[in-house]
Amino acid sequence: MNLQTEQASAIVSAFAQAWNRHDMAAFADLFAADAEFVNVVGLWWKGKEAIRVAHEFTHAAMFKDSRLSIVSTEVRFPVEEIAIARSRWSMEGHLGPDGAALPQRNGILLNVLRRSEGTWAIIDSQNTDIVEGVASRPQ
Amino acid sequence: MNLQTEQASAIVSAFAQAWNRHDMAAFADLFAADAEFVNVVGLWWKGKEAIRVAHEFTHAAMFKDSRLSIVSTEVRFPVEEIAIARSRWSMEGHLGPDGAALPQRNGILLNVLRRSEGTWAIIDSQNTDIVEGVASRPQ
Repeated sequence: MNLQTEQASAIVSAFAQAWNRHDMAAFADLFAADAEFVNVVGLWWKGKEAIRVAHEFTHAAMFKDSRLSIVSTEVRFPVEEIAIARSRWSMEGHLGPDGAALPQRNGILLNVLRRSEGTWAIIDSQNTDIVEGVASRPQ
Repeated sequence: MNLQTEQASAIVSAFAQAWNRHDMAAFADLFAADAEFVNVVGLWWKGKEAIRVAHEFTHAAMFKDSRLSIVSTEVRFPVEEIAIARSRWSMEGHLGPDGAALPQRNGILLNVLRRSEGTWAIIDSQNTDIVEGVASRPQ
């Protein structure tokens, strides 16, 4: 793994580490000020502050004991300053509306990163749940 | 709208036009040879040919009479040669496993495009269904 791939992958690892500490300030600091984020149900947040507030909200409730694992990450560099990092993830310990723990879930997270003055930051994330056994939804 | 935004948006419009003609060769031609695509249930296709084959499969069945509408597209240029285009979309006329038409569905499509020799091509797509009234899934 070359240095650029290592550095971009480290940001994705830090995403999961901050998630698992439920430290949404550290989480938000991985993002550029004007970053955007679309979550698994199509909520679209614009700006690092909106990303922080939204994740603080869910981490006070359904995600408060959740654990996110990055299963694998593949990184491409369409140009030198941009990385496209796609990760398979799994999550355990998230809660349903009744407070009961839900089964493990899996998904694919896309992060687009930009390097500025030697430092990588996430400029765009989009997340998609994996639904096994179907070609699309609803089915 | 400046010229670069117009050109990138035109690729997204062409995506929907090819979809609605169910012309998956034209659809695939919007993508770079090494493009990747993650669909709404987390299927991950690598390369323009895999993207074409997968969409031919679904357009022979559940999507054969479907109509995709791009509701809005916002384009950002993190560097000159890269565009991040995010589109809200709606779809009608897709079929369930029993062949009956399903209700309208909505989603958010991310396309990352690269400009090469004056021409924009999609290098990465990730698609997410909108689920109304929830913060995440499953709930």
